[in-house]
Amino acid sequence: MPDPPSVPRPPGRPVEERPRHAAIEATLDLIAERGIRGLTTNAVAERAGISKATMYRRWRTKEDLLVDAVAALVSEIRVPDTGTLREDARALLGDAVRLYTGTRPAKLIPDLIAEMARNPRVADAVRSGFLAQRRAALRQVLDRARARGELRADRDPELCLDLFGGVIYYRLLVTGGPLDERLADELTDALLDGIAAVTTVNDPM
Amino acid sequence: MPDPPSVPRPPGRPVEERPRHAAIEATLDLIAERGIRGLTTNAVAERAGISKATMYRRWRTKEDLLVDAVAALVSEIRVPDTGTLREDARALLGDAVRLYTGTRPAKLIPDLIAEMARNPRVADAVRSGFLAQRRAALRQVLDRARARGELRADRDPELCLDLFGGVIYYRLLVTGGPLDERLADELTDALLDGIAAVTTVNDPM
Repeated sequence: MPDPPSVPRPPGRPVEERPRHAAIEATLDLIAERGIRGLTTNAVAERAGISKATMYRRWRTKEDLLVDAVAALVSEIRVPDTGTLREDARALLGDAVRLYTGTRPAKLIPDLIAEMARNPRVADAVRSGFLAQRRAALRQVLDRARARGELRADRDPELCLDLFGGVIYYRLLVTGGPLDERLADELTDALLDGIAAVTTVNDPM
Repeated sequence: MPDPPSVPRPPGRPVEERPRHAAIEATLDLIAERGIRGLTTNAVAERAGISKATMYRRWRTKEDLLVDAVAALVSEIRVPDTGTLREDARALLGDAVRLYTGTRPAKLIPDLIAEMARNPRVADAVRSGFLAQRRAALRQVLDRARARGELRADRDPELCLDLFGGVIYYRLLVTGGPLDERLADELTDALLDGIAAVTTVNDPM
C-alpha cells in the first residue's frame, strides 16, 4: 500500500508521532483489559483509529509493539530532596504506592511480570525502562543520604534498592495487602530502623 | 462411559490417589513448560498416562484442575526454633531462597501471579495454600521472638511478614537479582537492624 500524500505539519506533536502515541495508549489499555495473550495488532489499530498498514509499517510483530509500549511506561518522576533520608523515602514510597494503585498499572503489571519470565526482550524493556528510572531516583536519594552519613556503611546498595521495591510489589502481585499512605510511612520507618528491639551493651535496667 | 470394574487395592497410596497425583504433577510440569494459557486437560491426560474420562470425572474444567494443582504446591516446612530471631530468620529465608531457585517453582510462579490478577479462584488457592503455609511458619518465628522481647512493639505484624517475603519475590519476578545464601544473611541483618546509621543522643563526637 503506498504512503499517503504528505500534508503540512500542524503545530504541536509531530504528525507521525500522533498515530504512534494513539497505538501505544491503545496497546496499554488492551493489555490491562485482556492481557498480553489477548492482544492483537488489529485490535490496537481499531481502538487507535489507525490503519493496519500504518501499524505494520511501524511494528512488524506484536512483540515489537509490546516492547515499545513497555518503553512508553516511563513517566516524569519527582526526585525528592528534603535534606533527610526519612522524608525523601516517605515521598518516594508515597509516589510508588499511588502509581501502583492506579487502575491501569495495577492491571498491567502482573501480566508484564509473567511475560518477562518468558520473553527476554520484554524483560529487558521493563528493566531498562520504567524500572531503571524508578531505581535511579531511589539511588539518587540513597546516595545523598550516604553522603550525609545517614546510611549504614555495611549495607549492600543493591539490597537497599530492593528493600524499597520489595514490599510494594509483593502486596500488589502476591498477597493483595493494602497499598496506602500508611504503608509508605510505616515501611520507611521499618526499613530505616529495622524490626528488632534495640538493645544496648550498658542497659540501664 | 461406565466406571472400570473395581480391582483389589494394592498397598501404598490409595488407588484412586495415584492418577490424581500423576495428573497434578503433569499439570505443574506443563505450566512450567508452556504457561497456564497453553495448558489443556488433554495434554495433562496424555502426559500423566490416564484417560480423558478419568480426568473429566475429577476435574470438570481446566480451572478446577489448576486450583487443585495450586493447592498441591504446599510442602513440608521445617519451622526453625534456634532461640534467636536472627538465626530463625536466616534459616527460613535460606529455605525460601532455595525453594524459589528450584527450576519448577521459579518457572511456575510468574505465571501463577499473572493468573491470580485475573482469576479470584486461583488467587484464593495460592493465598490460602502455599503462601498461607509459608506465612504461618514465619508468623510462628516472629511470635516467639516477640515473646522473648526481640521485636519492636511498634511494628505492624503483617508488615513484618511482608518485609520477609518482599525482596525474594521482587528479585524473582521483577529485577532478576541474585537469590542466594548471601541474600538470606544480608536480608536478615537489614530487616532486623535497618539500613539507617545508628545515632545516639549523647554522641561522643
